[in-house]
This record gives sequence, structure tokens and C-alpha cells, in this order.
Amino acid sequence: MNTHFHAIIPAGGSGTRLWPLSRKASPKFLHDVLGTGRSLLQSTWDRVAPLVGDDNVWVVTGESHLDQVAEQLPELCPSRIVAEPSPKDSAAAIGLATLLIAKTDPEAIVGSFSADHSITNVDEFRSVIEQACAAAETGDIVTVGIMPRNPATAYGYIKTGSLLGLPGAPTARRALAFAEKPAASTARRYVDSGRYRWNAGMFIAKASAFLEILRTEDPTLFEGLSQIAEAWDTESRDAVLAEVWPGLEKRAIDYVVAEPAAEAGRVIVIPGDFGWDDVGDFDSVVRLRQPVPGEPRGVISIGGSCDLLEVDASGVVFSEQPRTVAIVGLEDLVVVDTEDVLLIISRSHAQDVKKAVSLAGERGLDDLL
Amino acid sequence: MNTHFHAIIPAGGSGTRLWPLSRKASPKFLHDVLGTGRSLLQSTWDRVAPLVGDDNVWVVTGESHLDQVAEQLPELCPSRIVAEPSPKDSAAAIGLATLLIAKTDPEAIVGSFSADHSITNVDEFRSVIEQACAAAETGDIVTVGIMPRNPATAYGYIKTGSLLGLPGAPTARRALAFAEKPAASTARRYVDSGRYRWNAGMFIAKASAFLEILRTEDPTLFEGLSQIAEAWDTESRDAVLAEVWPGLEKRAIDYVVAEPAAEAGRVIVIPGDFGWDDVGDFDSVVRLRQPVPGEPRGVISIGGSCDLLEVDASGVVFSEQPRTVAIVGLEDLVVVDTEDVLLIISRSHAQDVKKAVSLAGERGLDDLL
Repeated sequence: MNTHFHAIIPAGGSGTRLWPLSRKASPKFLHDVLGTGRSLLQSTWDRVAPLVGDDNVWVVTGESHLDQVAEQLPELCPSRIVAEPSPKDSAAAIGLATLLIAKTDPEAIVGSFSADHSITNVDEFRSVIEQACAAAETGDIVTVGIMPRNPATAYGYIKTGSLLGLPGAPTARRALAFAEKPAASTARRYVDSGRYRWNAGMFIAKASAFLEILRTEDPTLFEGLSQIAEAWDTESRDAVLAEVWPGLEKRAIDYVVAEPAAEAGRVIVIPGDFGWDDVGDFDSVVRLRQPVPGEPRGVISIGGSCDLLEVDASGVVFSEQPRTVAIVGLEDLVVVDTEDVLLIISRSHAQDVKKAVSLAGERGLDDLL
Repeated sequence: MNTHFHAIIPAGGSGTRLWPLSRKASPKFLHDVLGTGRSLLQSTWDRVAPLVGDDNVWVVTGESHLDQVAEQLPELCPSRIVAEPSPKDSAAAIGLATLLIAKTDPEAIVGSFSADHSITNVDEFRSVIEQACAAAETGDIVTVGIMPRNPATAYGYIKTGSLLGLPGAPTARRALAFAEKPAASTARRYVDSGRYRWNAGMFIAKASAFLEILRTEDPTLFEGLSQIAEAWDTESRDAVLAEVWPGLEKRAIDYVVAEPAAEAGRVIVIPGDFGWDDVGDFDSVVRLRQPVPGEPRGVISIGGSCDLLEVDASGVVFSEQPRTVAIVGLEDLVVVDTEDVLLIISRSHAQDVKKAVSLAGERGLDDLL
């Protein structure tokens, strides 16, 4: 284990497509969406903490989620929780955490790992991240390229180049370019070529290299974050945050750091195939929870203590209420049974949860959002 | 209005196919299943009481439903509620009520009308029943034959004969035979012939004629019921009920009275076409509540005060809980949202509610039945 390796977990986003399980006040990373007994945030901790050591894990989250994050992660050092006064996207979140880490460890290597993704094969994940950490010693930005399961249009892609033969990172390749979420025909071409991989949004790099690119590509953002980082351990933290944070531009780390680095030939990709999923919607949840093809499917209950009565039915029930749920003659159903909202949706319409949330907003049902 | 005309409303059965709305302790006739603002029992009262007068309506129901029946029908004379210690099917229920009516009105004509059916065109219904009442003056048993909407296999059929030309009953015909629930091919043949009608289980007859057939066809049942009727207005009612009722045989009125009468050429049928439905399952409910073909369908909320959010959805929601129900990407869905059970079923599987109820029984969830 590299003692200079630090993990940053950006825990933001409201997870609208997993509503009403995920809500603004209680986003998906706080929920045991997959019924594993651990929230997505906790599962991320479980994967990442052993790689870097408990004291080297940082979580960046909204001020309103501070208590819940601390409660869910009792091993997380309280001083490692970075509370954002308002959402400013990933460049600000990861940039600030990197500056704070670099203050005490100038030799730091940082890795950012989303708080709300799922990884099935944790051993393989750790082995890939260890390679990424080794590859980061080059001073390049390292990312992970997920073997595509299908020509998905919901993910960005990474075009991979030749093997680099780096010590400690035998599968590392040059990343030639990042491609944004493609059209279906383009996605098909990407997958057929065998050269493209999904961008899972994991970045591993020397803090110094990361900050150098950030300063070059967005000096204003870098300057604002630096002011905050300097004031962080002083009495003026709150005052500086209140003054500077609201003016920061919302930008994604991909645009500010990863893409410029790729254009400069400074991105390395480690191919990964460890059952990654962004748990983006209920279709993901059903896929992750249902047995392998060929096995009986049926209805799976997640959370709560509901009795299930199923007749010719399959799907997933999230029950927060202690009652009996009977499903008859419906396949691939998703049911979310909360105190104030009952959602019933077919898996094939998983994307349309957003429309129901919009309707709730139009009706002024703000408490439900 | 014939002042000798009395209505008997047998209010029994648990309505398993409308579970969990309808339960043993609270069967379907007590519920506003169709969202009209009145329970099925109350709607039956509304149809029937104007035909016979409030004082001439009798309700036969289980002891455990006594309070709810009295509460729902404040105009019903308390002495007209006949409480059964246990369910003994329709011959005992209607037989006892008829004996009680005949005691005070030997000239009585009785009509029996199920407590849990739906009739759309009440004016037409009343006109048909007035004909039936007139036809009953002949001393025959009069029934109503519903024009089949389709070759249903869930109903019994009545084979109709020639017009009788009775005074006050111009459309009355001889009923040649009752046919039990047919196979699909037989039902198709019945409907194609134009001579068969659905048996809606309504019987109108002189009390004396009815009782004469009952005595002939089932002297034991007649004798038992007569003992109870004699003791009814005395102090020994409870004792006689407790002694005699448990030993009565469970038999349907169709077998004990209607079929033998038809074989003897003593049944008259009045054709009826007034939007009758037995509200047997959720498929009936959806049919009765959804707009006519061609009009937009959508989701209909029945009961409760739930907010509905629908996206590409249609069906019916019964909500007993004040919360928001969102349905996305599902057609012909039926949702019953009660405090202790949530049922979600596709309309096409309406018959399979029984299977869910059986499962609940097997799991020992007796409170839910």
C-alpha cells in the first residue's frame, strides 16, 4: 500500500431516476439501493478504505448531508469531511479536496471514486486501482476504462492506445481521447472496434500533477479553491468559504482536467472489468439484483420487512413499510413503497421516473422531491 | 308500486377476487368498489328501496357485519336485518327472509337482489323489475335474463322460450331451462343462438309460490327455516337459531327452487339490458370505471385522497392511504393500497387474485384474509 495514496469520494447528486428512494434531502448514495445491508456510500468506503487506509479517505458532500455521512461512516475522520455550501460540480469538489490533501502531503497521489456506483468484483477493482496508483507515478492522469457490456449511450467512452509497459501497471495503455455520451450508431461502432471503454469517472493522479493542470486550464477556479484551502484550518474558513464558494464556476472534472490532459498525451487508462455499474436507474438495480439468466427470477425484496406474495411476477420491491406486498401477473416490475410516495414502474421505463418527478414538481409536491 | 312487493338483499360472500379491498371481515358489498360515493350495498338499497318502499326492504347478512350494515343503511328498519349465525348459502338466507315476510303479509311478492352487483341504467332496471312483479302474479317464479355482452364462462345462462303476453309484463317469456357456467365453446353457441341470457340471480315470486316449491324440493330445509321463523319474534329466537341453524344444509336457491320450477314449466324470464355486472373481479371494476373505447384512459383513483402521478399508464388505484401514487409505463394496472397490504396486479390476471389470497393463507397471514 502506497502511504501517499489518498481517496476522494465526491458524494453529491440527487439521483432523480431512483426517486422516491433517492431524494434531494436523501440522495441515492445514502441508501442501501441494492439491498446489500450497506448504503452505496458505505460500500464505496468498504472498497476504498483498505486501499488507502482509513485516515486517507476524504468525502466531499453537501452541508445538509454532513450528519448522515458521519453517521454512516463512523471510521471516517471528521476532519476529512469537506462540506460544500452548495453544489459546484466535480472540478471544485475534487480540486478542493486535492488542495487540502496536498497541504499536508506534497507527495500525495489522489484517486476519486464516486459515492454511488456499484462494483461486483472488489478484488479485481483493488488490483486495477493498485496499477493505477503505480501508473500515476509517471505524473500522468490515470483513469479506468470499463469493458463495455453493450453499446450504451448513457456513458462517455475512452479511446485506448498502445500498451505502455509501466512498472507495476502491466495493463496500462495510453488514453488517446475521451468521447462524450455517443449516439447509438456511434456507440455500436465504438464497441465493435474493441478500442473503446466506458469512462467510469475514476481519476488517479499525483496531486501536484492534477493541480498543475487545474491551474493551467482554469486559473480562476484554481485561485478560488486555493484561497479556501489556505483558510481551511484557520478561524476564517467559514468567512472565506462564504465569500468565495458562491462565485465558483460549476464545471466537471472531465472538462477541466481529463480532456486537456488527454489532448496533451498525458492520460493513462487501466482497463477494468470488475462488474462496475453506475446504479443510474431502476433498470440497473433490477439487473444487479436478479439472478443470472436461466435461473428463476421472481420478486426480490430490498430493505424493510415486507412479506411478498408473488404470482407470475418478477421485479424488485423496495419496502419502507412493514406490510405485505402482493404482485400478480406482472414481469419486471419495480415498486418503491415509502411513507408518502408509492412508485410503480416497469423496468423498461426506468428512465421515465424523471417524468414522474417533474410532474410532482409541477404539482407543487415539493416535500416529495 | 305494489304494496305487497318486498325486497330481500342477501349480503354475504367474501369477494376473494377483490382482495385486499374485500376481506372476510369486510366483504365487498360494504365497499365503495366503484368509487361512486356509495358502497355496493348502499347502491343496491338506492336501486331497490324506491321499488318496494323503505319498510319492505330486508337484508340478510352475517352476524359480524350487522353493525356495518345498520350504519351504512340508516333508513333500513332494524327489524328487517336478518343476522345469520354462519353462512348457509342463498336457499336458507332467502327462504328465512321469505318466511318472515309471509308471516305478516301472506299476499307478499318477494324479490331477491344481490348486495354486491352493479347496475348502470337504474331506470331500465326498475322498469324490468316492475314487469317481473306483474308477472309474478301468475304464481310462477320470475327471473331476469341479462343480454350477454360476450360468451362469458363465469355466468350461468337461461334458455328463453316464447313470449307470454302477460298483462304488465309485455316482454316476459317462458324460461325453458337454467344452464350452469358453460365451457367456452358452449357459451359461444349459447350467445350465437340468440336464445340464451345471463342468469343474474334475481328471483321475483309470490312468497306462497316460492315457499311451496321450497317445501316440496327440500322439506328438511323448509322445516328448519319454519321453526326459526316461528320463534323469530319471541324470546326463544336465539335458542332456536342456535339449535337449528348449524344443522341446515348449504344450498343455492338456484338448485332448490329455480331449476325444479323451470323443469315444471313454472319460470318466467324478463329480458333485461341495464348494464348489469357482478363486479366479480378487478377486471369488472376497470371496465366499469374506464371511459368508453376511444376516449383517453389514464389512471382512475377510487376512494382515499391520493395524488396520482401517471406517465404512460392506465388502470385503477384504490387508495386508503393519503399519499402520492406514481405509475410509470404500465397499462391496465390495478393497485390496492391498504394499510397492511399493497396489491399490484395486471387487469388481465384479475382472476389470479385468488392465488395471492391462497398464498397469504398458506403463510398464516390470517389477519389479511
